[in-house]
Amino acid sequence: MCELLGMNCNVPTDIRFSFSGLIQRGGRTGPHRDGWGIAFYEGRGCRTFQDPLPGVASEVAQLVQSHAVKSRNVICHIRKATNGRVCLENTHPFTREMWGRHWAFAHNGRLKGVKSWPLGPYRPIGTTDSEHAFCWMLEQIRRRFPEPPTREKALSDLVRELAGTLGAAGTFNMLLCDSRRLYCYCSTHLSWLTRRAPFGEARLIDTELSVDFADVTTPRDVVSVIATRPLTDNEAWQTMERGKMMVFRNGVARGGR
Amino acid sequence: MCELLGMNCNVPTDIRFSFSGLIQRGGRTGPHRDGWGIAFYEGRGCRTFQDPLPGVASEVAQLVQSHAVKSRNVICHIRKATNGRVCLENTHPFTREMWGRHWAFAHNGRLKGVKSWPLGPYRPIGTTDSEHAFCWMLEQIRRRFPEPPTREKALSDLVRELAGTLGAAGTFNMLLCDSRRLYCYCSTHLSWLTRRAPFGEARLIDTELSVDFADVTTPRDVVSVIATRPLTDNEAWQTMERGKMMVFRNGVARGGR
Repeated sequence: MCELLGMNCNVPTDIRFSFSGLIQRGGRTGPHRDGWGIAFYEGRGCRTFQDPLPGVASEVAQLVQSHAVKSRNVICHIRKATNGRVCLENTHPFTREMWGRHWAFAHNGRLKGVKSWPLGPYRPIGTTDSEHAFCWMLEQIRRRFPEPPTREKALSDLVRELAGTLGAAGTFNMLLCDSRRLYCYCSTHLSWLTRRAPFGEARLIDTELSVDFADVTTPRDVVSVIATRPLTDNEAWQTMERGKMMVFRNGVARGGR
Repeated sequence: MCELLGMNCNVPTDIRFSFSGLIQRGGRTGPHRDGWGIAFYEGRGCRTFQDPLPGVASEVAQLVQSHAVKSRNVICHIRKATNGRVCLENTHPFTREMWGRHWAFAHNGRLKGVKSWPLGPYRPIGTTDSEHAFCWMLEQIRRRFPEPPTREKALSDLVRELAGTLGAAGTFNMLLCDSRRLYCYCSTHLSWLTRRAPFGEARLIDTELSVDFADVTTPRDVVSVIATRPLTDNEAWQTMERGKMMVFRNGVARGGR
C-alpha cells in the first residue's frame, strides 16, 4: 500500500513541514520505499517532482525539503508497490491536461480488474491499476462534460459517483486535483484537519520537528491537510468516513457526503 | 526569442555538460531571463523541471546541474518572453500524453495568428503561441493516427508537414519528442553534431568548462546534440538548413529532408 498527503489553502502555503513528516515513512518510519512524488500547483501551472527511489534516499526529495515552493494545492504520494514495477512511469502523482487545466491524481489501495475497463484518448504510460483508474475517470468526466460545467456541484457529484464505482472494485483512497478543488475519496483510511487562526504549534510524529504556525501565517490563512494517517500528534485530526468524499476549495471543506 | 537544446542517444547519457553551457545564456552570456525548463525521458517516464526564474538564478537549475540524471532523450529551453507573460504555465517544454507516451515540445520563434487555429481535446494551459501550436499538432496527429502508425516514416512525414505549416505562420524552430524519436524542425536557426568514438575533448563557449568524452563514454555510445547555437568552440557543429526537419533515434540522424 501507499500513503497520501494533500494540501488545499486559500493562500500559497509551504508544504515542507508536512512533507518532512511523510517522507520519513518512505523507508525510515514506514515501509513505503518504492518511490515518491509530489505535484505543486502554482497559478495555472503545476510542478511535479518524482523519484522511483525511497523518499529517505532521494536527492530530489532533499531539494523539495530545502526549497520553499508555495502552493495552494499539493498532492504527494509515497509508494509501496503492489501493482506495477518500481520505475518512474509508475510513480504517483499522475498528471494530465483537461479543459486547459492540469489534473493530478494519487491513489492508495488496489483495484481488481480495473485494467480491463475501457478507455478513451487518455491512456496509461505506466502499468499501474492507479493510472488506469485515473485515465478512466478523466474519460468519463470528459464524456459527460466536454467543456467544464458551470456548476461546481455537477462536477463534484460526478467525481463522487466515479470514485464510488472504483471503490467498489477494491480499495480506493484517492486525492484528485483539477487545479482548483481537491477531491478526497476515502475507501478505508484518510484523515484531515483545517488550520486557521488562532494558529498554534504542531509537532510531527515521524521526525523531531515542530513549527509554530502563528510565526509563518497571517490571520486570514486557511489551510487544510489530508493524509492517510495523521502527521502530527498534538492536533485534532478527523477521520474520514469510509465511502465518503470531501471536496476542499480555498482551504475549506465543501462537503462530507 | 529563446534558445533550444536537445539530446538523443543510444544509451542513457548525462546532459549536464551541455546544460551548463546553455543555462549561462539564461541571464549571464545571453538575455533569456524569462524562465527555463528541461524534460528528461527515463524509460517510459519523463521528468520535467521548470522555473519562471532566470536560469542563472534558479535553485532548480542548480539541482539539475548537480544531479546526474541520465536520459536517452532530453529537451531543454531557455525563454525570452515574446508572447505570454512570465509564469510557470508559460514555461517550455510543454508535455502531453498521447498513445500512452509522453510527448514533450519546445519552440523558439513567434507565430502569427496561430492562437485562433482550431483545437480538439488538447488545450493550452498557459497563453503562449507555442503551447497552442503544440496542442494543434497533437490534434492533427491524433486525427490522422488514432493509434500509433506501424511505419515510423508515416509519423515523421506528418510531423514534417505540420511543422512546415506552422513555419509558414512565422518563425518555428522546434524540438519535439514522442518518447522515442526527437524531431527537430529548423525555421531559422538550429545546429547539431553527433558524438561517437573516437571521443575527444569538448570545450563550452559560455563558461569555462571542458570535458574529455573519452573518459565518460564507451566506444558504442552515440550521442546527438541539437542547439539553437553551437555550445562548444572546438567541435564540428553543422548548421541545419532552413525549412528542413531532422529526426534522431538512438543517437543517429534519420533524415535531413
